[in-house]
Amino acid sequence: MMDGASRVYDVEAIRRDFPILSREVYGKPLVYLDNGASAQKPQVVIDAVTRAYAEDYANVHRGLHHLSTVSTEKYEAVRETLRRFLGAAHEDEVWFTTGSTFGINLAASSWAAPRLGPGDEIVLSVMEHHANIVPWHFLRERQGVALKWVEPDASGALDPQAVIDAIGPRTKLVALTHMSNVLGTVVDVKAVCAAARARGVATLLDGSQAAVHMPVDVSDIGCDFYAITGHKLYGPTASGALYARRERHGEMRPFIGGGDMIREVSRANVTYNDAPHRFEAGTPGIVQMIGLGAAIEYMEGLGMDAIAAHEADLRDYARERLGGLNWLSVQGNAPGKGAIFSFTMEGQAHPHDISTVIDRRGVAVRAGHHCCQPLMTHLGVSATCRASFGLYNTRAEVDALVDALSACRSLFE
Amino acid sequence: MMDGASRVYDVEAIRRDFPILSREVYGKPLVYLDNGASAQKPQVVIDAVTRAYAEDYANVHRGLHHLSTVSTEKYEAVRETLRRFLGAAHEDEVWFTTGSTFGINLAASSWAAPRLGPGDEIVLSVMEHHANIVPWHFLRERQGVALKWVEPDASGALDPQAVIDAIGPRTKLVALTHMSNVLGTVVDVKAVCAAARARGVATLLDGSQAAVHMPVDVSDIGCDFYAITGHKLYGPTASGALYARRERHGEMRPFIGGGDMIREVSRANVTYNDAPHRFEAGTPGIVQMIGLGAAIEYMEGLGMDAIAAHEADLRDYARERLGGLNWLSVQGNAPGKGAIFSFTMEGQAHPHDISTVIDRRGVAVRAGHHCCQPLMTHLGVSATCRASFGLYNTRAEVDALVDALSACRSLFE
Repeated sequence: MMDGASRVYDVEAIRRDFPILSREVYGKPLVYLDNGASAQKPQVVIDAVTRAYAEDYANVHRGLHHLSTVSTEKYEAVRETLRRFLGAAHEDEVWFTTGSTFGINLAASSWAAPRLGPGDEIVLSVMEHHANIVPWHFLRERQGVALKWVEPDASGALDPQAVIDAIGPRTKLVALTHMSNVLGTVVDVKAVCAAARARGVATLLDGSQAAVHMPVDVSDIGCDFYAITGHKLYGPTASGALYARRERHGEMRPFIGGGDMIREVSRANVTYNDAPHRFEAGTPGIVQMIGLGAAIEYMEGLGMDAIAAHEADLRDYARERLGGLNWLSVQGNAPGKGAIFSFTMEGQAHPHDISTVIDRRGVAVRAGHHCCQPLMTHLGVSATCRASFGLYNTRAEVDALVDALSACRSLFE
Repeated sequence: MMDGASRVYDVEAIRRDFPILSREVYGKPLVYLDNGASAQKPQVVIDAVTRAYAEDYANVHRGLHHLSTVSTEKYEAVRETLRRFLGAAHEDEVWFTTGSTFGINLAASSWAAPRLGPGDEIVLSVMEHHANIVPWHFLRERQGVALKWVEPDASGALDPQAVIDAIGPRTKLVALTHMSNVLGTVVDVKAVCAAARARGVATLLDGSQAAVHMPVDVSDIGCDFYAITGHKLYGPTASGALYARRERHGEMRPFIGGGDMIREVSRANVTYNDAPHRFEAGTPGIVQMIGLGAAIEYMEGLGMDAIAAHEADLRDYARERLGGLNWLSVQGNAPGKGAIFSFTMEGQAHPHDISTVIDRRGVAVRAGHHCCQPLMTHLGVSATCRASFGLYNTRAEVDALVDALSACRSLFE
């Protein structure tokens, strides 16, 4: 790893680390701007997966033979990698999951479900992804919990004080995204967590987007739960983690039952293992987590600050170029936002049309509600197009997006 | 694919399909007999995974761009592969999971939890894996459900009539393994399912082992739920499926909440998608399921009958050879059992010692309770050694096991 001061962020060299980026779509170079949905994988991740299957594979934890030992060591080493990446104080605060959706559901079922009753409140923002809404709707449907919503302002910014003001005497949990997957808004979660903690209210953060684009330190943020998903972090599908602060562990009941999470099972009784294993039942995503470890190390090798700086440059450039298209409405312009741009086009072009048309020029963006229907309703749209940037994107790709949109515009004029 | 009649099961050629089988452990050829814990992967599976990441990767379902379309098509095609493999009547009866543990928990939470109350009974065998015990203990702990246990006989066979006789007026579910992961016992699940169905009792089968070693036809068996796990099926970790009979779909509430499983989400309300998506929240294990599809096609290419015949030969040979060691006790000798041999050695050698000692000769077996503590108690042991065979094992490997055990025996004599 190079010294931080002398490190040069060579995006063209970085692009060569990702085999898919050299492919074409419809005879055009791939311009992959769908990172908000899922990120591409560097060769080191693909190689880690291949090696894990072809050279050292066995089930973990319960084996005494050589392959099982090697597999267990490689797998468990990822816990320290993720602890460091997230700034957690202890390895046992890092629980392996298959992604943010599972992690948030785990917190909802293990921590919230046994503690919240009729009239208890959960504070949410209107910007949440369905993964950070539906588990709370379950508690509303099944046990009468009330959901309290906070809206972003016209720029897409979420005033932390508005969230804090929504905390009432019956509030038990604040569940917030750290970065909106539609607007790119970064939320001042540290201020919210400090205020919530002072009121004895727990906090859960959806870090699905934020952890990809900026340094995260859960100890500094002061949250109780922080969910990340590996496939957006340049890692394998079905990988991820939930950070769970130690002081919450004793308050949580098991979620998934099976092997590895027990201490003793009899016909009459069962006792449970300690965290993290208590919350990691069954054969885990061994190879996926090994792959995620390689992805995190790859990102750390580039430097999270350097990635954030590169993407800030892309954001500024994209903001300027997209802002120059007077037939395009960009949703979300909060200060310090990430490089995620949702937009609609005036006139007849539905976001689905736009996505389909510019795909023929090799430009991959997403169109739809982005699993954020409450936000779509708030914005007064049914869908948007979304161009979301990653560590390997370039200014030239912003230009390619703008050119493709302009060509699309001329089709629908 | 070759014609069934003329197909020759060339185990040496098959072994060359699995890269790990050519490696050595401690300078000895790897003799991998830990297939009950997890199976090795053929190159076609590793290649499918690599290709999915390196050439065609994107998130599924919600994208309109080319890569997302390709990825979705490859991913969804696996549903038909699994439908065919399991003999399900409809594709929407195949729900993608991360493994059997998740699948059984899904059935427990979505079907059983909202339906079973205090005094309702679940009939289980004492041979169940913890994955098919702990989810039911949750219902006992949380809602007063009673667990009713059926024991195998001295040979390890489970009399289907004993299971049927255990069904009482309060019984709501029979949850059984199709093949014991410790004893190799194959259960006559068809007889049990027919009797349960006649009494209006639902059935769940843990197919984690059976689906690997014999042809399975859930329509013929007549069960309501059938769980399989991909990593034992020569596929990726974090892949699997739950077969759920259509007539149960309307009785099941969602389990994991998030994207893809909803129809509409507002601040006040949520409505849900139809099965299978209703039960597949969030970004799924896209690449893992594509890899599992390749694994299933690989097995089908060999022929499940041919695999079963090969393993029956290994079972007969291993039974004879291990039976000749008068200082070894083999647990389980049920007629028609699979090629899974649990054993203990008379004298001082603990199963953990045996596993560690024979590992130095390259022989990988598992030692412990195999996530079957109630069965260990029933057998009067705390642990066993287990040699579990797969489609690539050979008679020579049975000999290697016997030689290693004999050498181990002489150490402890």
